[in-house]
Amino acid sequence: MTPKTLNDHLSWRYATKKMDPAKAVPQQKVDAIIEAIRMAPTSSGTQPFELIVVTNPEIRARIAEVAFGQAQITDGSHLLVFAAWDNYTADRIDEVVKLNVDTRGDLPALHDYYETLKANYLPREAEENYAHAARQAYIALGVALVAAAEQEVDSTPMEGFDPAAVDAILGLKERGLRSVLLMPLGYRDVAGDWLLPMDKVRKPRETIVTQVA
Amino acid sequence: MTPKTLNDHLSWRYATKKMDPAKAVPQQKVDAIIEAIRMAPTSSGTQPFELIVVTNPEIRARIAEVAFGQAQITDGSHLLVFAAWDNYTADRIDEVVKLNVDTRGDLPALHDYYETLKANYLPREAEENYAHAARQAYIALGVALVAAAEQEVDSTPMEGFDPAAVDAILGLKERGLRSVLLMPLGYRDVAGDWLLPMDKVRKPRETIVTQVA
Repeated sequence: MTPKTLNDHLSWRYATKKMDPAKAVPQQKVDAIIEAIRMAPTSSGTQPFELIVVTNPEIRARIAEVAFGQAQITDGSHLLVFAAWDNYTADRIDEVVKLNVDTRGDLPALHDYYETLKANYLPREAEENYAHAARQAYIALGVALVAAAEQEVDSTPMEGFDPAAVDAILGLKERGLRSVLLMPLGYRDVAGDWLLPMDKVRKPRETIVTQVA
Repeated sequence: MTPKTLNDHLSWRYATKKMDPAKAVPQQKVDAIIEAIRMAPTSSGTQPFELIVVTNPEIRARIAEVAFGQAQITDGSHLLVFAAWDNYTADRIDEVVKLNVDTRGDLPALHDYYETLKANYLPREAEENYAHAARQAYIALGVALVAAAEQEVDSTPMEGFDPAAVDAILGLKERGLRSVLLMPLGYRDVAGDWLLPMDKVRKPRETIVTQVA
């Protein structure tokens, strides 16, 4: 078997519309996807989001209700919720510094770097900092979609939901988190998914790429 | 040779601090990275960003000047600039519809979908739409960082630059684009990169993952 390339994974995956509720994703595959999210790069290494892995069927049903009833949330076996920090705080950045010191040693340059970061971030509005943190979750989403495809697990990236309602269901606000993205995991219902037989739509390269040589 | 996994790629890559100016990335590898960006998923398939591939040394030097002098921009051989749409417009969405029709056929559901999208997007402030488009570029960045690692090409994701200045250098404003992310491509300077020998810093899984079972 020829090893699959990234572009094979990107061609194989699609935003699955109908998942088979009879099939659950094995824990080992979920773990590989989570590990890829954990290893995804983020701005200044702050990893300013958390991942909530929801298997509980009742809670997923409640989330589906505030997500336009999208059935993949309940037909899949796992729902990943990317929840960004609602703000950058001194405590949160200090924890990042501590982890850096624990891993790399107590380097002055490291403290200087994060002191500068605090001086930049802490005076800003919470909303601006949240928006920045949320963008980092999108990097991890891109990596997670590749990770799922590598595991031959189907997934559906979702922005279409009421974030405040999801935050309430999962108790995220109290934790200083705001839900940004949903990503159900499961297996495509080969017979029932209208999107599966359709060709993937992507702009031709010349439409989106400019060379400045 | 054992085929590399996604997690191998994520472990191998790092935000390269010093690139070797004597080594250029072969076009075939650049093409593979661009193809991954082109295939990256985006919200409603709008692909609301463009990619500027800058090889011109003078232009890269000017961009480096407005990016805190980060030397990877000039020491690498290629600079990828992710530039998001400054707004969603009827014309832009109509082009997406046309591409969908060309690829999948003239399906009524397809027109309905994008009419609803227009009804949601077009009344919003440009800034809100830009912010949404910019997030999609971050998905593609995540995919691009994996793509570069798969090609054993080094890269550095960068938010630290003056977007308005980069837009001016590249003439992006006139094209309705705003620079969001820079990503130089090149090869690590093994002897000269202070970051290379350091361990990667990532939070332990239990810090960032919660189970709701």
